Amino acid sequence: MTQASIITIGDELLIGQVVDTNSAWMAQELNKAGIRVTRRVAVGDVWEEIWQALDEEQKHADILLITGGLGPTSDDITKPLLCKYFNGKLVVDEEARKNVLDIFTRLNRPLIERNLLQAEVPDNCTVIQNTRGTAPGMWFEKEGKVFVSMPGVPHEMKGMMESHVIPALQQKFHFPFIVHRTLLTAGVGESFLAERIRDFESALPPEVKLAYLPNYGMVRLRLSASGREKETIEKKVADLFETLQGLVREYLVTNEDEPLEKVVGKLLLGKGKTMCTAESCTGGYIAHLLTSIPGSSAFYDGSVVSYSYQAKEDLLQVEHSVLESKGAVSEEVVIQMAKGALKNIGSDYVIAISGIMGPEGGMPDKPVGTVWVAVGDENSLVTKKFSFRFDRMRNIQLTAVNALNTLRVFIRSEGQ
Amino acid sequence: MTQASIITIGDELLIGQVVDTNSAWMAQELNKAGIRVTRRVAVGDVWEEIWQALDEEQKHADILLITGGLGPTSDDITKPLLCKYFNGKLVVDEEARKNVLDIFTRLNRPLIERNLLQAEVPDNCTVIQNTRGTAPGMWFEKEGKVFVSMPGVPHEMKGMMESHVIPALQQKFHFPFIVHRTLLTAGVGESFLAERIRDFESALPPEVKLAYLPNYGMVRLRLSASGREKETIEKKVADLFETLQGLVREYLVTNEDEPLEKVVGKLLLGKGKTMCTAESCTGGYIAHLLTSIPGSSAFYDGSVVSYSYQAKEDLLQVEHSVLESKGAVSEEVVIQMAKGALKNIGSDYVIAISGIMGPEGGMPDKPVGTVWVAVGDENSLVTKKFSFRFDRMRNIQLTAVNALNTLRVFIRSEGQ
Repeated sequence: MTQASIITIGDELLIGQVVDTNSAWMAQELNKAGIRVTRRVAVGDVWEEIWQALDEEQKHADILLITGGLGPTSDDITKPLLCKYFNGKLVVDEEARKNVLDIFTRLNRPLIERNLLQAEVPDNCTVIQNTRGTAPGMWFEKEGKVFVSMPGVPHEMKGMMESHVIPALQQKFHFPFIVHRTLLTAGVGESFLAERIRDFESALPPEVKLAYLPNYGMVRLRLSASGREKETIEKKVADLFETLQGLVREYLVTNEDEPLEKVVGKLLLGKGKTMCTAESCTGGYIAHLLTSIPGSSAFYDGSVVSYSYQAKEDLLQVEHSVLESKGAVSEEVVIQMAKGALKNIGSDYVIAISGIMGPEGGMPDKPVGTVWVAVGDENSLVTKKFSFRFDRMRNIQLTAVNALNTLRVFIRSEGQ
Repeated sequence: MTQASIITIGDELLIGQVVDTNSAWMAQELNKAGIRVTRRVAVGDVWEEIWQALDEEQKHADILLITGGLGPTSDDITKPLLCKYFNGKLVVDEEARKNVLDIFTRLNRPLIERNLLQAEVPDNCTVIQNTRGTAPGMWFEKEGKVFVSMPGVPHEMKGMMESHVIPALQQKFHFPFIVHRTLLTAGVGESFLAERIRDFESALPPEVKLAYLPNYGMVRLRLSASGREKETIEKKVADLFETLQGLVREYLVTNEDEPLEKVVGKLLLGKGKTMCTAESCTGGYIAHLLTSIPGSSAFYDGSVVSYSYQAKEDLLQVEHSVLESKGAVSEEVVIQMAKGALKNIGSDYVIAISGIMGPEGGMPDKPVGTVWVAVGDENSLVTKKFSFRFDRMRNIQLTAVNALNTLRVFIRSEGQ
């Protein structure tokens, strides 16, 4: 199987100033296309280290995809380095030059000499035009190996990958088919699942791999296989996936590779219903998860993020006396928040949340991580108390996932 | 300077199912401690590939930090591999065993044999106890090099790094001091900045590095240096940083390494004022950014995420006739949203947003990416129209950053 390495270049990756989301996206797309990524390497903006990475990664892979270090400033050295690495010389690419000029005209920004340098490329590469920025991509070949250099700006790199790099790789190499099938479980640990499906796992044919991917108290199971014959491999994985689903049926959230918020969205769309949220401690994170889904306006009406007492009282009609007597983090308050949101936003279902995410704000009887959740509809509300004990961000994420799952279970159990 | 490589293990990283946030966090912490991370490598759950990575990375680095592949399931092979790599044999660690038992007792989950295997460790490593999970960490030494293996679960790894690994590395090695100073600019491009500070940049002493980190239309500039004498190096960078700030003063957002939402939060805290948001197309993302900051309840009151017409009308008193005649994405509507939020939430400042984030929902006169923003207080509102042309998520992020920056400028310009 054709193997690829991803090399990302930039000091910001090595001092942790930037989380590398490019590599994950690239790996996903390459994988879908039948290219196995075996290594991902990040190096700094240092001549010898980039050079060494190029030398080493071509021992591991047939395709080297390189991002970063193509900016117009002097800390960006990828282009001159590649030029030297492949013994080329820099020449102006007319189409790239026109692109730079067009972009500056459109943005109405003054063009300086430095910007035009972006249009220079080594004369021995195939230029990949950048429709979303000024730095062109470069495709080199050497001893049967392909080296592709792209900008580190995510949407520029994505544009090049989709419109040029992946189609060109598919044309050049003969890739096998890769099939992944993923399901998501909730309410059960990794070890317990492993025990449950032990016989299934040990009987798997060698070309099929099973992976456990735990996250936020949920566990994803993934079957993967690759082969030359699309139908054979798809059929084999589909049959095994069917068996696997049967083995974990009572914990199954979805048999697609999709996030929980999308599962909830699809459930609502299927019923022609909508939902809303009333969020205190999650501060709009659930609203953000739901509205990240394209088309979410069809099932999501909105949220009241009621951080202050006044917002809870004025926008959700939580009673002042209840806030005073029970505290904002209480079952009574989340019930009133849920009712207020249902009434004011006019949705079919609601999630209401109040809690203490930390690091400050804990009390002896309500330590950091205490969360009350109410989910339901106008006829019925279910409340739950959770106790998380992590950092602020993880507490927010865990609360969101658990609240969404509680609503999912509520909707699924209706009429049963 | 002591060099480190980070090796992350897991197929999920190579098919892009998981974004590697661990490496960024680790790099940040190591950097603060004076350890230079020169490479980050990700490999799959494949025996030969992990083995090879261990062989290769020790050529580059003195310290190898390894995460992942320590779960209780059979796709996790890091522990047996390390055991073999260092010629050890697996033995039960009593403290780790007690930890596993404690965790299962506390969670009230049935314990199975497989879970107890987590307490086995190679007999030639120093065990790093895991206070947040079942898999212990392992510290090996060989020919002056240190190899540390930790779980891939972020909060378990972070716990080990903070309480054990970094202090132990500091004790073993003699690290130099690393100083970074970062500032954030808005409203100006990377090339323009580079031109502006060209003389400054070319006159920098060789031990000081300047980096340009563009993101969301803003550019971060970072000066870095390392040295043996803390005070000398701090003074040198501080002086240069002072000069740099002077050169970009009119574009300066902050001279700290902090996100824009924190800059806005500090500005509000300094004035003893609060803000709220009324978000349509950003769907709670601004609320989420602001409430991710610990202590944000002191300056942030809440948000109305008004995705539907009804939410806009009922919670923000946007007039139905205006929604009908002007459309939800219009200057008139964001003005009414802003006024409604100020009144109902009772804050000093407001950001209101309505737009079309895509991929669907564009209209001939309002294409995808059209956004109206209103910011201000009860006396004065500023409106702005933006046109972004990226994917949904990036449009949401760009809208949030630009809206926050517009409010920042509004607050800063008061009384001038």
